[in-house]
Amino acid sequence: MNPHALRRRTILGSTTTLEHPFDIATALTPEGQGRFVGHTAPEYSNMVGPFGGITAATMLRAVLDDPRCSGSPLSLTVNYAGPVATGAFTIDAEPVRTNRTTQHWVVTMRQDDSVATTATVVCALRRPTWSDTEISPPDAPAPDALEVAELPQSPAWLRNYDMRFVAGRGPFVGDGAPSPTSTSTLWVRDAPARALDYPAIAAMSDVFFPRVMLRLGRMVPAGTVSLTVYFHAEIDPRADPGRFVLATARAQHFGNGFFDQSAHLWTDQGAALATSHQLVYFKD
Amino acid sequence: MNPHALRRRTILGSTTTLEHPFDIATALTPEGQGRFVGHTAPEYSNMVGPFGGITAATMLRAVLDDPRCSGSPLSLTVNYAGPVATGAFTIDAEPVRTNRTTQHWVVTMRQDDSVATTATVVCALRRPTWSDTEISPPDAPAPDALEVAELPQSPAWLRNYDMRFVAGRGPFVGDGAPSPTSTSTLWVRDAPARALDYPAIAAMSDVFFPRVMLRLGRMVPAGTVSLTVYFHAEIDPRADPGRFVLATARAQHFGNGFFDQSAHLWTDQGAALATSHQLVYFKD
Repeated sequence: MNPHALRRRTILGSTTTLEHPFDIATALTPEGQGRFVGHTAPEYSNMVGPFGGITAATMLRAVLDDPRCSGSPLSLTVNYAGPVATGAFTIDAEPVRTNRTTQHWVVTMRQDDSVATTATVVCALRRPTWSDTEISPPDAPAPDALEVAELPQSPAWLRNYDMRFVAGRGPFVGDGAPSPTSTSTLWVRDAPARALDYPAIAAMSDVFFPRVMLRLGRMVPAGTVSLTVYFHAEIDPRADPGRFVLATARAQHFGNGFFDQSAHLWTDQGAALATSHQLVYFKD
Repeated sequence: MNPHALRRRTILGSTTTLEHPFDIATALTPEGQGRFVGHTAPEYSNMVGPFGGITAATMLRAVLDDPRCSGSPLSLTVNYAGPVATGAFTIDAEPVRTNRTTQHWVVTMRQDDSVATTATVVCALRRPTWSDTEISPPDAPAPDALEVAELPQSPAWLRNYDMRFVAGRGPFVGDGAPSPTSTSTLWVRDAPARALDYPAIAAMSDVFFPRVMLRLGRMVPAGTVSLTVYFHAEIDPRADPGRFVLATARAQHFGNGFFDQSAHLWTDQGAALATSHQLVYFKD
């Protein structure tokens, strides 16, 4: 039996519950205060190990599932310390400091006593203040006016997203020519539809194919080393499932085996949802 | 006796050694494997507690001072969990995973068993690859063509920098008018001159006054919650002291008591030194 299916039954109590693959992949079983056990999900596997976005979402979920969690996510940094092997993992989540407005967490994922991933999370109580957005959403036709990207069968995680490219398809989506810039812009949503929450936003911050592949016009080994997401919106979990997110990303500098990526996520109403950055290892 | 002066003698062995204030402020005394003791420096104090940049540099220094450190800094995230009180602090630095190319650290600063600051650091062995920089340095006259900014006496940390503004002086530097954008561009270097190293770059990533003050044209309470720095260059510690760094920063989104800032640091030769992001708490 697939150990993932086994876990699914254990967690949900019944396989008749039709849960979204994203919720199954990020589901955690508490094992005492601040400790959670999870399991990699084949539906979200990447070239090697799990999709970095699902790992980020799972680290964040450990904090959200902890009864000590206060406020909503403000900032998340995930460091991909080593490969995550197929199978079970343990996550320890520690609220190292709780203030009136912010709460700071240190989160560690281990497999067989080896640290696979570390993260820090800041949660906060938001309150109304003066607000302004200095950046602008990229120009994009409505998602309905764009074709659904034909994504390759592998890596598997792609099948969990409906992507509609405005620019910067890259070699994953059939554009094998080197590009003078690394910018990609796309509409993206979970497939099947799912209401947007903080773990989903964390995962969507990592849906951009490695920018180096756009520039070189070919597939090269690459993997995220560190990912940071700043959450700018208070998320309403009752929002309609299936709303698209407008996502855009570009690299700033490539060199010495690493590049950085800066990304912006917008609601379909043009509101700033998250800004994100990552540092990525690559071979050329 | 000033406890800082006392520490200075203890660490340096003799007060006749003329060490740079930055090195004194970030100096750490090892206390067993992975543990360091430091002391806040009045020269780098901010409105409340130490300048966030000196705390970031000190967290990074714990990793660099550890004999287990492999490679040079690639990524640093510092979370300002709570106020750092004047006095001694303990830093625990743990290399949670060492790979062939990267090494992952978790770093914690405590005072009286309370966590004041957490950080994660990734070090890496850099190797030559294809390289390109997609962003450009901002237009700026040579630093010699610009006046040295007249900075206020308080906060104290400002006196350790030679700043020459190209744009976006803000209320700290005498421009009390609200600004339609939050961009600041300046040449900056340590004062007195000091050769650039990774801790100095980490600190310079935080020299930008809170962007909300530029926009509102007045001083408001504000403090960094989380700071990330990606180091793009292999730093030559033998480089001439006194070289300027061209630094530019802007906010992307303000709202609900927080804003984010994106910054770029360049060498005086136009090479990408670091990209940085931070999330900042504010009251309006």
